[in-house]
Amino acid sequence: MPQIIKERLFTPGPTPLLMEGQARTLTATLHHRTEAFKQLMNETLENLRYFFNTKNDVLMFSSSGTGAMEGSIANLTSPGERVLVCTAGKFGERWVELASAYGLETVKVEAPYGQPLSVEEIGKCLRNDGPFRAVYVQATETSTGVSHDVKAISDLVRPLPETCLVVDGITGLGTTDLRPDEWGLDVVIGGSQKALMVPPGLAFASVSEKAWKLIGKSKSPRYYFDFAKERKNLAKGQSSYTPATTLVVGLHATLQYIREVGRENLIANAAMLAKATREAAKAMGLSLFATDSPANAVTAIKSPEGMDSGAIVKEMRSRFGAIIANGQGTMKGKIFRLAHLGYYDALELFAGLAGVEISLVKLGHKCELGSGVRAAQKVYMEHAG
Amino acid sequence: MPQIIKERLFTPGPTPLLMEGQARTLTATLHHRTEAFKQLMNETLENLRYFFNTKNDVLMFSSSGTGAMEGSIANLTSPGERVLVCTAGKFGERWVELASAYGLETVKVEAPYGQPLSVEEIGKCLRNDGPFRAVYVQATETSTGVSHDVKAISDLVRPLPETCLVVDGITGLGTTDLRPDEWGLDVVIGGSQKALMVPPGLAFASVSEKAWKLIGKSKSPRYYFDFAKERKNLAKGQSSYTPATTLVVGLHATLQYIREVGRENLIANAAMLAKATREAAKAMGLSLFATDSPANAVTAIKSPEGMDSGAIVKEMRSRFGAIIANGQGTMKGKIFRLAHLGYYDALELFAGLAGVEISLVKLGHKCELGSGVRAAQKVYMEHAG
Repeated sequence: MPQIIKERLFTPGPTPLLMEGQARTLTATLHHRTEAFKQLMNETLENLRYFFNTKNDVLMFSSSGTGAMEGSIANLTSPGERVLVCTAGKFGERWVELASAYGLETVKVEAPYGQPLSVEEIGKCLRNDGPFRAVYVQATETSTGVSHDVKAISDLVRPLPETCLVVDGITGLGTTDLRPDEWGLDVVIGGSQKALMVPPGLAFASVSEKAWKLIGKSKSPRYYFDFAKERKNLAKGQSSYTPATTLVVGLHATLQYIREVGRENLIANAAMLAKATREAAKAMGLSLFATDSPANAVTAIKSPEGMDSGAIVKEMRSRFGAIIANGQGTMKGKIFRLAHLGYYDALELFAGLAGVEISLVKLGHKCELGSGVRAAQKVYMEHAG
Repeated sequence: MPQIIKERLFTPGPTPLLMEGQARTLTATLHHRTEAFKQLMNETLENLRYFFNTKNDVLMFSSSGTGAMEGSIANLTSPGERVLVCTAGKFGERWVELASAYGLETVKVEAPYGQPLSVEEIGKCLRNDGPFRAVYVQATETSTGVSHDVKAISDLVRPLPETCLVVDGITGLGTTDLRPDEWGLDVVIGGSQKALMVPPGLAFASVSEKAWKLIGKSKSPRYYFDFAKERKNLAKGQSSYTPATTLVVGLHATLQYIREVGRENLIANAAMLAKATREAAKAMGLSLFATDSPANAVTAIKSPEGMDSGAIVKEMRSRFGAIIANGQGTMKGKIFRLAHLGYYDALELFAGLAGVEISLVKLGHKCELGSGVRAAQKVYMEHAG
């Protein structure tokens, strides 16, 4: 029976849009080389610093998050230099690919999919295999749903005067407690289509004074993602090249909303939804993929024995118009992922879980209807009072 | 703890908007006295006939539904004439007020709040207290969540050559099987902010040949809601007075969507959601207000003994940003209502029910979390396969 079906995103990017932000883009008739846009840009950058929880410069690029990741390779290194890449999933592997593309000597500390990085191993590597120009890590590894102990890693890197710590915070920002200034996170990368509630197309990088010093000496080629050039222009409320104007207008609006909600509340909201989802998964008789140090950004759940997770993804899409994420790479077919990034609320989670329960039952998994929702409701009630 | 809260309507009007329809209004730069608008109007009227399930003229007014209700009094009657009003709730009482405002002699057949009209009583009244110029009835009484047996009533009125049957289908259309042509429903009233997925501001009336004959003879005063004048102008793709242009543009879009979904599927969707809500209410240990002949449009649920339903409404609003309806008049504080009109889907219902469960538990009602959702999931699975 064909029915009314509303499309809903439960994916770790793109995420649900704040309609008030989108609406603002419809009436924005501004050119990027005007005073009005400069003011908008300045306010946006100021509020980005609030969102990033830093006093450092936050650079903005019209690109996907990967663009700013590339920038943090190109600007901090010179060809042949040694970097340490901490990798625990598909996005960790992207650091490896980027370092390779720029001719760097890469030393890896790896964790298997679904497990967090060992801080001890990172420490050992820093002591034995350095010196490193930079250390690259994900705050939260979106492909596996694992969160890393960025603070502990920063404690290892901060004392090294010639080594910068670069954190991919694309899904970590707005979901996880990150303190760039207090901990000494030299570069933190973000993207618009995550907790910022804006469509894809903007990438960000906060840059510390320590990083700027290194950038001054590094010789890897860069042009579009030239941090120093961008910093100079942004100081005048200008981007070096034509910015994605409507996205900036939307971001300006969503950042105002995020300031109203409060950064800590936004993070607490994601933490509550993530915990509720983990409890729901267990109540549905499922196992979590990341049992140790699960992320607030996204929860990866193992498909029941013998069931391709792609079938769950498909069922959710065709039955409810609900888009959930499959696993990536070798995790494809084995896990599915539900996100908690940005503009998600409790009712949305309950709806998604009720849909997952039905999809699982339809595919032959034995689970009590309503059991996952109930577990999530309990977590909500513990947290919301 | 402040959280991300998304506002959601679970009310029997206004109802959730089809965003594609709203988006269309943003780019519509048309004047109502142009060829482009005439074409839009003609297509809209054609699709309204599909939605109303009739070949009769469907008139459109820029007003709330009450305006078209007034029109169906003013156009069909002359002062002092006798009409039969069938009333089973607040909207039945509106017919009484309208008939009184126009100096008509009103005979009432009443049903207590929460119960449907007795067709037998209506028949007796038609035989003993007539002749009547017109009979006024609600297809579904929104204030109580009751559905009326419009077909059976039409069987009584159709044979009477001088008596028209006027049906308030404001919440009945798109949720209930109504067959104006087959059954002889002379006037059927509709409103934009119901199953049509458009904001408030447009009212509709389908008018049969039998009604047009009566309209030619009736002498009650009318101007803005003059049916014959509107028919004449609409035949040229024009409204008599400035139409609410953006609402017409939005309606044009939502009617296209409704044609894609299919009228019968739209009705089946509401029926499924209504049944699921009734089963959920029982599973939560609550009683239905309308046990006999409940409507697909809206479900009225009794508040637990000793609990003001206003507290549930307030809890849903402050906790989840979810707007549900209280009772009206003497039903206020005793019932709350969840709607199934138009652009609602199963996931939205699961979300709303999970919220109601939490609100009830927080207010001291003993009910198992997830129990209502589970009951609704079961109904969904029976219907959706």
